[in-house]
Amino acid sequence: MASENDDEQGAGEEESAASFLTERQIKVLQMRQAGMSQQQIADLMGTTRSNVSILERRAHQNIARAERTLLQWTMLRAPISIKTKAGTDVFDLPRAIFAAADELGIRLPVTSLDIVVQLKRRAPRLFKRRALEREVLISVTEVGEVMVDGQFAD
Amino acid sequence: MASENDDEQGAGEEESAASFLTERQIKVLQMRQAGMSQQQIADLMGTTRSNVSILERRAHQNIARAERTLLQWTMLRAPISIKTKAGTDVFDLPRAIFAAADELGIRLPVTSLDIVVQLKRRAPRLFKRRALEREVLISVTEVGEVMVDGQFAD
Repeated sequence: MASENDDEQGAGEEESAASFLTERQIKVLQMRQAGMSQQQIADLMGTTRSNVSILERRAHQNIARAERTLLQWTMLRAPISIKTKAGTDVFDLPRAIFAAADELGIRLPVTSLDIVVQLKRRAPRLFKRRALEREVLISVTEVGEVMVDGQFAD
Repeated sequence: MASENDDEQGAGEEESAASFLTERQIKVLQMRQAGMSQQQIADLMGTTRSNVSILERRAHQNIARAERTLLQWTMLRAPISIKTKAGTDVFDLPRAIFAAADELGIRLPVTSLDIVVQLKRRAPRLFKRRALEREVLISVTEVGEVMVDGQFAD
């Protein structure tokens, strides 16, 4: 599972890639991680508490965007992708996934229950009782890892 | 380093996080994943091959930046961080890491060999024979996962 990065990075640039975090954002995250208050950090950096607060919020926004970016990239490469309508019963999804896997000659090493559990864990608020609240894209890797993206299928 | 514009980030905060990939970039990645050539994609999208090439390159740059962003975030939260000088012998690193862990009362569930193997795998070109080529930051989680960032320590 963790092996997919190797080629990308090995073949990549000489330098390590740029980050979506600025140096100031990283500094703030480090000091927050060390247990400092925003005011203490502001005093150390010679700026205002509200500025530290903005740096911290932007850093977390950028981290969330980075997470979504990599989720999309992983889903793009997953062999099985199913666009599901709002109202679909969660217990109908494993059958659809296994059917898609069969068509590709993939034998998924997971059970229906595994799939339902992963769906609930990945997208806890996506279901109202057993029904999907809205249209989503569900992707499944060869090793049966299930991913869900709500905006993807738009 | 890169100071990014936050202009687009405000929109849709309630929704699941925005991505660093645009819809057109995602489309290109999907079609490339499906085995299409850049020219075929250009014809379908009504644009030029060179434009598709740019979209694809930007997408991969954004994915690489997202990966580095999450690496930094994971390293920030790791309890053990060691800044190491260029020239350090790779076989001296496990001892330094275990010493740092001891100070924190952490008993790492890995051996010295595990650590060296992880270092070599994570940063294959970082070592010249046994010596570190340049200063790096090495972080280790409670479960003994080793991460390396070359620009971080700069």
